[in-house]
Amino acid sequence: MQELKGINMSDTFKIAVAQMDPHIGDLPHNRARILDMLREAAAEGAKLIVFPECALSGYVFDSAAAALSSTETVPGETTSLLAKLCAALDVYCVFGLLERAGNDIFNSAVVIGPQGIVQNYRKCHLPVLGIDRFAAKGDSIPVIDLPFARIGLLICYDLRFPEASRSLALRGIDLLIIPTNWPEGAESSPDFLTRARSWENRLFVAACNRVGEERGTRFIGRSQIIGADAKFMAEADGASEVILYAEIDPALAREKRVVIRPGEFEFDPIGARRPELYGGLDTPTA
Amino acid sequence: MQELKGINMSDTFKIAVAQMDPHIGDLPHNRARILDMLREAAAEGAKLIVFPECALSGYVFDSAAAALSSTETVPGETTSLLAKLCAALDVYCVFGLLERAGNDIFNSAVVIGPQGIVQNYRKCHLPVLGIDRFAAKGDSIPVIDLPFARIGLLICYDLRFPEASRSLALRGIDLLIIPTNWPEGAESSPDFLTRARSWENRLFVAACNRVGEERGTRFIGRSQIIGADAKFMAEADGASEVILYAEIDPALAREKRVVIRPGEFEFDPIGARRPELYGGLDTPTA
Repeated sequence: MQELKGINMSDTFKIAVAQMDPHIGDLPHNRARILDMLREAAAEGAKLIVFPECALSGYVFDSAAAALSSTETVPGETTSLLAKLCAALDVYCVFGLLERAGNDIFNSAVVIGPQGIVQNYRKCHLPVLGIDRFAAKGDSIPVIDLPFARIGLLICYDLRFPEASRSLALRGIDLLIIPTNWPEGAESSPDFLTRARSWENRLFVAACNRVGEERGTRFIGRSQIIGADAKFMAEADGASEVILYAEIDPALAREKRVVIRPGEFEFDPIGARRPELYGGLDTPTA
Repeated sequence: MQELKGINMSDTFKIAVAQMDPHIGDLPHNRARILDMLREAAAEGAKLIVFPECALSGYVFDSAAAALSSTETVPGETTSLLAKLCAALDVYCVFGLLERAGNDIFNSAVVIGPQGIVQNYRKCHLPVLGIDRFAAKGDSIPVIDLPFARIGLLICYDLRFPEASRSLALRGIDLLIIPTNWPEGAESSPDFLTRARSWENRLFVAACNRVGEERGTRFIGRSQIIGADAKFMAEADGASEVILYAEIDPALAREKRVVIRPGEFEFDPIGARRPELYGGLDTPTA
């Protein structure tokens, strides 16, 4: 584990997960909705507000050309607006957009705070689905230190790969944030995969999905905030725009050794690893 | 992926999961029960019959000395009886026992077939709980080729560690077998962890838990057989001795690329891995 520098170990903070219904290609609408929901969540005391994957753009594009007018650069118009609002409200947010970078489009999620852009994460695992068919892959899975927690981001399909969240847990994150666009057919994620990632790593997990429909693809909502003990702290339905809230105590994710009855029932999902037996997990598949 | 040698790719087979109630320290009772349930499952056409962790011995021992009279060697009395019965019935089985080896006790599961002992697996991840507090750790997680499938074994707490099942999946298993002793407090495993292991690896999963109580610890049953698509094929209740059955088609676990709608919705939980981004998973935790 890396040492945690400059993070107060005793503070809790309120997280908000803003399940929204982006309109495909309608950036002005989506941008306004993000800003509105961010103001609402900040007024409720949230310090970190999470929006879905592709919250700014929508997802079901049939070509890179069709998506181009729905992209932005990072930094760009929306990150600048959000940076100003985060500074005014003294909050952090995570939102998903299609990022234009040279000739590439990335499916990205950006962490923004009062100081501006903190980190841009580019989705690393891409399914054959929607804009991901035409997107470029990210090339790192960073840990991100906020004043109140160490976090990591994974976008949608990234969650399927246990190595990604494990790698973040081994680098000491408290909270795994998942901006996502779970469509029909991806019920496995809210049904069991989010809790598995919490349970195997003893992490808080905040998954922000969208609702609504794009070109025949319906998205299933069910955004979730999950405790370090893999229990639900908050869960949304499958159809409504709604903001979930939960109070996060990062210290609960930092003590990996869990003592149910001292000397009789204890477990440690990090300390009991046997890495010498897992050969090949971080070397390419043959 | 390793090449599959000598395995017929088109055959299905019936698996049985024998959820039983071992009596702690009563090896004659437990041995007889294992033999009876094996005969019953074979008569139903099962080719592979799975029993719980510590099916021969029970689990809640308070010292190695207290467990000693409930251990056996491998090979030993019970493996010999099972080998004879497997030869007579032309079936394979997996059963859990406390294995005595020199001064060590291992929490082991043995695969036995018509030819005798095929593989002994020693539990690699040990929680602070029951006999595991006094057991020695296994030192490998082998793949096991049976005539009808390539399988891997993990025992109970081993399942918590995603690297273990991932490592087996990367070596081409079709079916993950989990002899287990899930007590109260381990509901996470039947609630979501078994399906997560299937979903992230596209594997069949057969988890055989026990029921009943030992010295104040109640076991929660809920044995499961899960398809390569992470859907339940069979599930037991929390209280009964019962044998579950399902027909396994190993070919479904061998095609990792899943095509829902060609070119529009496809995923591949093995092929889409980014191992170059997971550094450190198979090197010791600092």
